[in-house]
Amino acid sequence: MSAMTVATAPTAIVGVTPGKGKLTIDWRGRGSEVFHYVWLRDNCPCPRCLHPSGQRLVDILDLSPDAAPRTMTLDQAGALLIRWDPDGHESRYPSDWLQGHAYSAEARARRRRKPVLWDARLKPLPEAVWPTVWREPEAERRWLQSLFDYGFALLHGVPARPGMVAKVGDHIGLVRATNYGRLFDVISKPDPNNLAYTALALGVHTDNPYRDPTPGYQLLHCLLAEAPGGDTLLVDGFAAAERMREEDPEGFDLLARIPRPFRFADAAADLRAHVPVIGLDSEGAVTEIHFNNRSAAPLDIAAELVEPYTEAYRRFALILARPELTLVLRLEPGDLIVMENGRALHGRSAFDPNAGARHLQGCYVDKDGVGSRYRVLSRGSDGGGA
Amino acid sequence: MSAMTVATAPTAIVGVTPGKGKLTIDWRGRGSEVFHYVWLRDNCPCPRCLHPSGQRLVDILDLSPDAAPRTMTLDQAGALLIRWDPDGHESRYPSDWLQGHAYSAEARARRRRKPVLWDARLKPLPEAVWPTVWREPEAERRWLQSLFDYGFALLHGVPARPGMVAKVGDHIGLVRATNYGRLFDVISKPDPNNLAYTALALGVHTDNPYRDPTPGYQLLHCLLAEAPGGDTLLVDGFAAAERMREEDPEGFDLLARIPRPFRFADAAADLRAHVPVIGLDSEGAVTEIHFNNRSAAPLDIAAELVEPYTEAYRRFALILARPELTLVLRLEPGDLIVMENGRALHGRSAFDPNAGARHLQGCYVDKDGVGSRYRVLSRGSDGGGA
Repeated sequence: MSAMTVATAPTAIVGVTPGKGKLTIDWRGRGSEVFHYVWLRDNCPCPRCLHPSGQRLVDILDLSPDAAPRTMTLDQAGALLIRWDPDGHESRYPSDWLQGHAYSAEARARRRRKPVLWDARLKPLPEAVWPTVWREPEAERRWLQSLFDYGFALLHGVPARPGMVAKVGDHIGLVRATNYGRLFDVISKPDPNNLAYTALALGVHTDNPYRDPTPGYQLLHCLLAEAPGGDTLLVDGFAAAERMREEDPEGFDLLARIPRPFRFADAAADLRAHVPVIGLDSEGAVTEIHFNNRSAAPLDIAAELVEPYTEAYRRFALILARPELTLVLRLEPGDLIVMENGRALHGRSAFDPNAGARHLQGCYVDKDGVGSRYRVLSRGSDGGGA
Repeated sequence: MSAMTVATAPTAIVGVTPGKGKLTIDWRGRGSEVFHYVWLRDNCPCPRCLHPSGQRLVDILDLSPDAAPRTMTLDQAGALLIRWDPDGHESRYPSDWLQGHAYSAEARARRRRKPVLWDARLKPLPEAVWPTVWREPEAERRWLQSLFDYGFALLHGVPARPGMVAKVGDHIGLVRATNYGRLFDVISKPDPNNLAYTALALGVHTDNPYRDPTPGYQLLHCLLAEAPGGDTLLVDGFAAAERMREEDPEGFDLLARIPRPFRFADAAADLRAHVPVIGLDSEGAVTEIHFNNRSAAPLDIAAELVEPYTEAYRRFALILARPELTLVLRLEPGDLIVMENGRALHGRSAFDPNAGARHLQGCYVDKDGVGSRYRVLSRGSDGGGA
């Protein structure tokens, strides 16, 4: 087969060049992309191969590993038509679909999440007003986008009534019940089963690293804030991890490579998990932090790593405690903060429980539902992608 | 300091030998273990350092990295007492606590999960009777142990009433609500949004790899099984992964190292996740499988890996389809199966929906709650440890 050349609409395919095991598609003014035959055959989007839910109807074992085009043409709409050997199946790949699924390094980089790192000086804050977010899908979509970009986002004007936090949680995703219940009260109480329920200062941390799976998002809703102190402290764990990578690459590697144990126990629960303090994806990007001094259990790592690991953990703790990385917020009644638990580490300054009441309600929401909602809200605009 | 030597009860400490940065403890007839000073100081179990919940009260930044024993003695109960430089704090480490937290390679290997691999011939099945599990904590603990060992376990005699599956789920852990609801019906229905709700055969798979987090356990409860066919197929994903590691180490490495995309979409949801097909822990042990041909989305991995990755995926699919690995079960009304979703791949044979009704109800339960329940049930017996 030789290269086909046609010329039509703005994002039209202007050339298809077959090669060994793959073809190259050229778009007018949009560069070119390579697609392997085995990939194209495997991802045929026709209704016999793909259920309307997007689920595959054809098992990979029913496809020949030697699939190759018998003929290739462009139809009137500019889609690529391939008739396959050996089975004679015909596939149709719209030009947009091919562009949207291209897998060159550049195409993949364009689709990758690009978190916006921040520190104490972050301004303006990612925030919105709840009645607007509740009523207007586009306002909600933009607010969710800011949550993905910054790892936290504020809502103002959430009625300061008990239980509202779970309503907001079930609006943006699905509340996950844990041993603390569907929602929990952060209020100083006698004989607390958790330090969160005291008036002590809490260093910045992620929640529940002892849980598998750890919570994806935490919501905290302020109902009362009469006590002096008790400010909310936030640190961008992704930014802190990048400092660590720069200042102590070997320590960074230990925190990323070696899972450490975390634990929480009370009369009714005994939760344990091993997880790396710094989670990386397969390309080395930071995706998740687990840091909680209070629930760190005794290290059970290789003996020769105990000293260097402890030193790395201490260095990361020092970075996380830097005032220049710490955003200080004062939550007032009606304010609600949503935090990506694996990114936006949170803490609080101490408060005097005798000088006034302080009452927050919180809940956890899984990541999948929030991402799904964002993509559904994006349908018809840019097609989603978070 | 020189070595102390004492001799008391059966598991008594008979020697403590200080060294550079660490000490060695010898137990009567139980060998010896090394503990670093920095580890001992960091894990002081006294009530000033440790809250009754097991949470640390002392921040790592408040501890000197140069902590070293000023004095070491054994008290009358055989516990190790250390008075620390530079702060003069005194710590007391019971002999049992030290043994339980030792971190030599041997001690860690003893505590590691040891899954029992199985194939088509597995006998006897891990199973119990629901009224007994419900009433007797020790019977429940043993049944949960079998679930951890085999990655699935059966319950018989669960009343064949709608909703019971969520009652069982909330008994052994906490049901996780998803976009499918708190529970879902697996029944052939018109215009299904998911292939599970058809009468088609389903190859073995894990559920919802497009979800972050993926479900930890799936429960399926049989309410009606009048249709011929529709048998439950189970494959031990850990055993299959070990075959893959042996037969195609390079393919195994690709499936373990490179996350692949999965997706599910309908009118209300758009769920996407990247995850490796074979999940490994930091020591290379298989911990989790994600395999679902129906929801595998178009590969977006590095172009040079597309062909070898697809070949590795096909080989693993071939292993998972081997009859000698496939356990075939017939669920009857009142039977309930709990599956570790990342291990026990499940499928079903086709059935004829016109020849009789088939109705299962399912739900998902997170891992943390089930592990916690097992450990709480184990208190007073062997102290837990899953």
